[in-house]
Amino acid sequence: MTDITRADGRSVDQLRPITIERGWSSQAEGSALISFGNTKVLCTASFTNGVPRWLTGKGKGWITAEYAMLPRATNERNDRESVKGKIGGRTHEISRLIGRALRAVVDTKALGENTIVIDCDVLQADGGTRTAAITGAYVALADAIEWGRGKRFIGQKAQVLFDSVAAVSVGIIDGEPMLDLAYVEDVRAETDMNVVVTGRGLFVEVQGTAEGAPFDKRELDALLELGVNGCADLRTHQLAALQPAEGE
Amino acid sequence: MTDITRADGRSVDQLRPITIERGWSSQAEGSALISFGNTKVLCTASFTNGVPRWLTGKGKGWITAEYAMLPRATNERNDRESVKGKIGGRTHEISRLIGRALRAVVDTKALGENTIVIDCDVLQADGGTRTAAITGAYVALADAIEWGRGKRFIGQKAQVLFDSVAAVSVGIIDGEPMLDLAYVEDVRAETDMNVVVTGRGLFVEVQGTAEGAPFDKRELDALLELGVNGCADLRTHQLAALQPAEGE
Amino acid sequence: MTDITRADGRSVDQLRPITIERGWSSQAEGSALISFGNTKVLCTASFTNGVPRWLTGKGKGWITAEYAMLPRATNERNDRESVKGKIGGRTHEISRLIGRALRAVVDTKALGENTIVIDCDVLQADGGTRTAAITGAYVALADAIEWGRGKRFIGQKAQVLFDSVAAVSVGIIDGEPMLDLAYVEDVRAETDMNVVVTGRGLFVEVQGTAEGAPFDKRELDALLELGVNGCADLRTHQLAALQPAEGE
Amino acid sequence: MTDITRADGRSVDQLRPITIERGWSSQAEGSALISFGNTKVLCTASFTNGVPRWLTGKGKGWITAEYAMLPRATNERNDRESVKGKIGGRTHEISRLIGRALRAVVDTKALGENTIVIDCDVLQADGGTRTAAITGAYVALADAIEWGRGKRFIGQKAQVLFDSVAAVSVGIIDGEPMLDLAYVEDVRAETDMNVVVTGRGLFVEVQGTAEGAPFDKRELDALLELGVNGCADLRTHQLAALQPAEGE
Amino acid sequence: MTDITRADGRSVDQLRPITIERGWSSQAEGSALISFGNTKVLCTASFTNGVPRWLTGKGKGWITAEYAMLPRATNERNDRESVKGKIGGRTHEISRLIGRALRAVVDTKALGENTIVIDCDVLQADGGTRTAAITGAYVALADAIEWGRGKRFIGQKAQVLFDSVAAVSVGIIDGEPMLDLAYVEDVRAETDMNVVVTGRGLFVEVQGTAEGAPFDKRELDALLELGVNGCADLRTHQLAALQPAEGE
Amino acid sequence: MTDITRADGRSVDQLRPITIERGWSSQAEGSALISFGNTKVLCTASFTNGVPRWLTGKGKGWITAEYAMLPRATNERNDRESVKGKIGGRTHEISRLIGRALRAVVDTKALGENTIVIDCDVLQADGGTRTAAITGAYVALADAIEWGRGKRFIGQKAQVLFDSVAAVSVGIIDGEPMLDLAYVEDVRAETDMNVVVTGRGLFVEVQGTAEGAPFDKRELDALLELGVNGCADLRTHQLAALQPAEGE
Repeated sequence: MTDITRADGRSVDQLRPITIERGWSSQAEGSALISFGNTKVLCTASFTNGVPRWLTGKGKGWITAEYAMLPRATNERNDRESVKGKIGGRTHEISRLIGRALRAVVDTKALGENTIVIDCDVLQADGGTRTAAITGAYVALADAIEWGRGKRFIGQKAQVLFDSVAAVSVGIIDGEPMLDLAYVEDVRAETDMNVVVTGRGLFVEVQGTAEGAPFDKRELDALLELGVNGCADLRTHQLAALQPAEGE
Repeated sequence: MTDITRADGRSVDQLRPITIERGWSSQAEGSALISFGNTKVLCTASFTNGVPRWLTGKGKGWITAEYAMLPRATNERNDRESVKGKIGGRTHEISRLIGRALRAVVDTKALGENTIVIDCDVLQADGGTRTAAITGAYVALADAIEWGRGKRFIGQKAQVLFDSVAAVSVGIIDGEPMLDLAYVEDVRAETDMNVVVTGRGLFVEVQGTAEGAPFDKRELDALLELGVNGCADLRTHQLAALQPAEGE
Repeated sequence: MTDITRADGRSVDQLRPITIERGWSSQAEGSALISFGNTKVLCTASFTNGVPRWLTGKGKGWITAEYAMLPRATNERNDRESVKGKIGGRTHEISRLIGRALRAVVDTKALGENTIVIDCDVLQADGGTRTAAITGAYVALADAIEWGRGKRFIGQKAQVLFDSVAAVSVGIIDGEPMLDLAYVEDVRAETDMNVVVTGRGLFVEVQGTAEGAPFDKRELDALLELGVNGCADLRTHQLAALQPAEGE
Repeated sequence: MTDITRADGRSVDQLRPITIERGWSSQAEGSALISFGNTKVLCTASFTNGVPRWLTGKGKGWITAEYAMLPRATNERNDRESVKGKIGGRTHEISRLIGRALRAVVDTKALGENTIVIDCDVLQADGGTRTAAITGAYVALADAIEWGRGKRFIGQKAQVLFDSVAAVSVGIIDGEPMLDLAYVEDVRAETDMNVVVTGRGLFVEVQGTAEGAPFDKRELDALLELGVNGCADLRTHQLAALQPAEGE
Repeated sequence: MTDITRADGRSVDQLRPITIERGWSSQAEGSALISFGNTKVLCTASFTNGVPRWLTGKGKGWITAEYAMLPRATNERNDRESVKGKIGGRTHEISRLIGRALRAVVDTKALGENTIVIDCDVLQADGGTRTAAITGAYVALADAIEWGRGKRFIGQKAQVLFDSVAAVSVGIIDGEPMLDLAYVEDVRAETDMNVVVTGRGLFVEVQGTAEGAPFDKRELDALLELGVNGCADLRTHQLAALQPAEGE
Repeated sequence: MTDITRADGRSVDQLRPITIERGWSSQAEGSALISFGNTKVLCTASFTNGVPRWLTGKGKGWITAEYAMLPRATNERNDRESVKGKIGGRTHEISRLIGRALRAVVDTKALGENTIVIDCDVLQADGGTRTAAITGAYVALADAIEWGRGKRFIGQKAQVLFDSVAAVSVGIIDGEPMLDLAYVEDVRAETDMNVVVTGRGLFVEVQGTAEGAPFDKRELDALLELGVNGCADLRTHQLAALQPAEGE
């Protein structure tokens, strides 16, 4: 690591200010309004007893996610996907990523025949929206599971979550690997990577893309190390946000 | 007015707690996060220089609005309209209502060939979302117009807004006219009315619907009076929210 | 009322020539081709035994309506909504209005578990299409109910319709309140209102919109009075059209 | 020809009662409400000066057609294609057929850079809707062309229509070739054929389909003969309907 | 027949080189990659036990077909229908034609409650794609039926196919009737006809269209004769392709 | 590497039989039918002079890709996305991946204001379709670029491709990292990774997903090594396929 300072004063291996407003919604079974700097994502978890028809009778639950962005979350307004009448490739891709990330730490048998839908709506976007979404979604999911346990839809001792999960973006800018890119950094990155890591430090997803020049193994390793450490920091924020629950 | 007390302790002619968080968004040219009790609507105003092709060269601006609800704004999750691939009738109807309400107080010639798109996204819904949207949208619109003036897209002395506008719901429950219905009240109302009123106390829109028994002129008059008074209260909140602007 | 004469020679409180061709369709269970001057709407009522799944077993029937306009009903051709692949906001809004208006006079319990779909297709448009649609739809609905009674889907003594319903537009033009606006009047109206009134003179729906300057209570009252009287006239036409039925 | 009598008393080579109400619409540049028995199709022709972009500057005009059916034109209600959000294959197929049939008798160079859109909306369906549509569309088209000539969009001596065109269905029922099938006949036909023929007796389109058993050359010839004769009869009706125009 | 020679050296009544690669797909229950010269269509038949809900319990099977073209099958790339979000009229029309052609030779009672979906995907297009599709689809269908028999979904002695079916295009170019038009010929044809004929020489479908001048009975007869003979040749290719099956 | 043998007899670090049929299409400017075992993808490259409007005048070209699967490419038939009216998330995701992979080796300035659209249509699917698509698309792209050079749309010395690109899937099955998974292996993989590598051995894209248990750094490194070696083998096949071109 060099001691380069970034536009917002961070060091290369430092996260933006992270806040997690747990229980933001009074409607959803679990929710969190998460901020990675100016990126703000509202994550809600909707619990329903029962599963989609194709899963009925298998004794397993279902977790799925949908990601979307408000039209003016970004610096320039984007047309609504509902108005366009179709969902764009990027939206689809991120929704699928979030769903996979969460399912990686869930024991669907312990969940029982219940469905949890996670909605991640980006209220304001400044880079890293998908990683903020995954990190906040975990908090909303954890609360929805406890809600289901309280309603006795889930067994009292069932260990539905066998690990936690968080995500962060990393990238190479001017040859320098950096953690948690803000939008102005993201657009300049030669390589852009999203890393999804469990609380135990294992990889759930690694998605690295050469936006500019292709990258080599040494650069990949540097990015992975930054990402793993960043996710460990996020894990601390998630634990803190979920803390009060223990006293309930 | 009788001295009936409502479930939340309000009198029949009392608004729910109103908050207007002006400038919530760091991306939009104008914005407000408005709450009518548990109903929370994020209103953003996007200013662009120029008008749609069909309006070019007429020396007039354009104001339009889009309303939408997050899937879990409500007590039960609704499928996303983007996923369904089409916008429902209710959404269309409310978007059109908001647009008309705002245009009623705008001098589009004074606006010049500029476009302002207002997005009203319901983050949490507890009745009265369309009226909260209109009331908050006015604040976002006012700021976007000032932004345009600052950028010299609008003349320094042009009076674009010739009045303010606010809206509130009123309804008859168990024979009693009431102001600003929360969701539990709304579903029980025999007659449901939305009133859009300017700061000068004139009507922009009156939409009354018999959900149960048809209503007579006397009931209609009682509802209108409640609505006009409620909008006057909302006007005070709008002025307070816009206050700091004068010192800028 | 002043003694202003309108472009077509009517007084301000006079309807256009009204004709109701009951039973126009040889296919539908009830039908009426209604004209308000040059506005012509074909209303058909389709009766089916049974209700949508979500209503099954509740002992209640279902009434719904769909409004549409032929592409060349208007002076300039509009693209078909089927070709565009989506229904516009205006169409949605009017379909919902017609459905609400009819349900306001129907006892769905007396209807039993039967569904009636009313289609209102504008063959020619010259202002007031939604009000002609409601007025004609009532006639088609009444016949479809009698058809259902004849087939013994509805009890012989069940009073399904507890009132009649009609609708008319009113508006202020050059400061003057007028009844039943033709298209050339409609586009000039400062305020435009649609009033849906039962045979007993009660309001089902009041929708007033300031297209130009906002309006005050006095103007609103004048419009309502015109509308109520206009609907009483339409009631007479509906009764006359339904007359032969009594002899059947 | 045998002397079989049909359900409605016609002989096998007889058309149903044909009526053509020319100029039904007060909005369109040309129009006709045509009946083939209980089949009723409203045909309107919309004339616009200019052509689609891809045809600009080629000195040629454009004729296109759209066919649709009201939801309750048929004995059982069909969902609207606008509500389903897509146009069915049958609708597409018939729209294309009507367009081709009309273009076969039009000299697009003589038409000049003008566009005529023909809308054929089936108000009531009892078999043969596409053939009634073509036959009525010709009348609407002829009037729209004269309208364009009156407006001087078309040269005073330009011969835009070099022939007339009509269409009729024929089919084999219980081994017997028959003309102009009503719906009850159509569903029983082993072979179903639509024949589009010009006023001079030439074929524009021949579409024969074995709905039951495949057919041989002798049967095909019998059907073609019936169809050609039926179209000659229709030609007489078209001429009669267009007659008054000469006196104008 | 004259002894005109065509661009590719064929005589007017000669097919292009025909190849049928039976069993091309290792996934489908029946398949054929068919070529009519440079036109190449991959036909797969998907067999499923059971029928759509609307056909359940009637003791009959269901055969349907879908036709599509790869975007670069043609000389210029066409946008994908999946990307456009809707299927064009031409695609619909051809899918329906293929389905009808196949059903004309199938005894759906002998098929039993089984469904066969035929997909005809044009990999390369050089005229006559719909006729190649029908001709190849028959081979795929025959194999899928035998597969179903092998799985005992179809009775061992049930005669599901009571005839074979093939199709070919014919047309008039410079006044000369010709068989199996390649694309360069197709665009020049005054009249274009597709003929679908069974192995026994009976017509299933005759679709003739005047692209240029209308045609007379003599021309129609010449085209039909060419088409019937062409289909007889195609029948020979189908038999040859299906030959090895007998030895299995 | 252990000496485990796979179902198809391959060693863990062995590709399936690879074939590349260059120039398969007689219509496209570049094409390749590539097979990775039973996976067969038809890649066509469509060259057009000019760029989309948003890129005009920047002196740069545009490369994009679309991926799709025939409905019966797979063991069970999937509904067509054109019929469903929307493109699924998986399709979108893969189309975007292919486009990024190709753009990573293209100098868009050297390409000049030209557009190349790559269509990758899966004719038969047995795992690894996206990696076969990328590998084949490179061959089609290379030929389309040479076509453009031949037409003088691209400068004679412009080095448009500064490297080659290939892709392969790797995964961990029963704890064992393996190369180029067939479908039966893919569904059993605990971790699934797609690696896109340039001819020089640099990474363009790394997408690893834990389908079962999360994975650690050591496993990730083993997968990357397998993937890089597999891509080097594919590079040899690409060179061989493109060989004849040099003699042209």
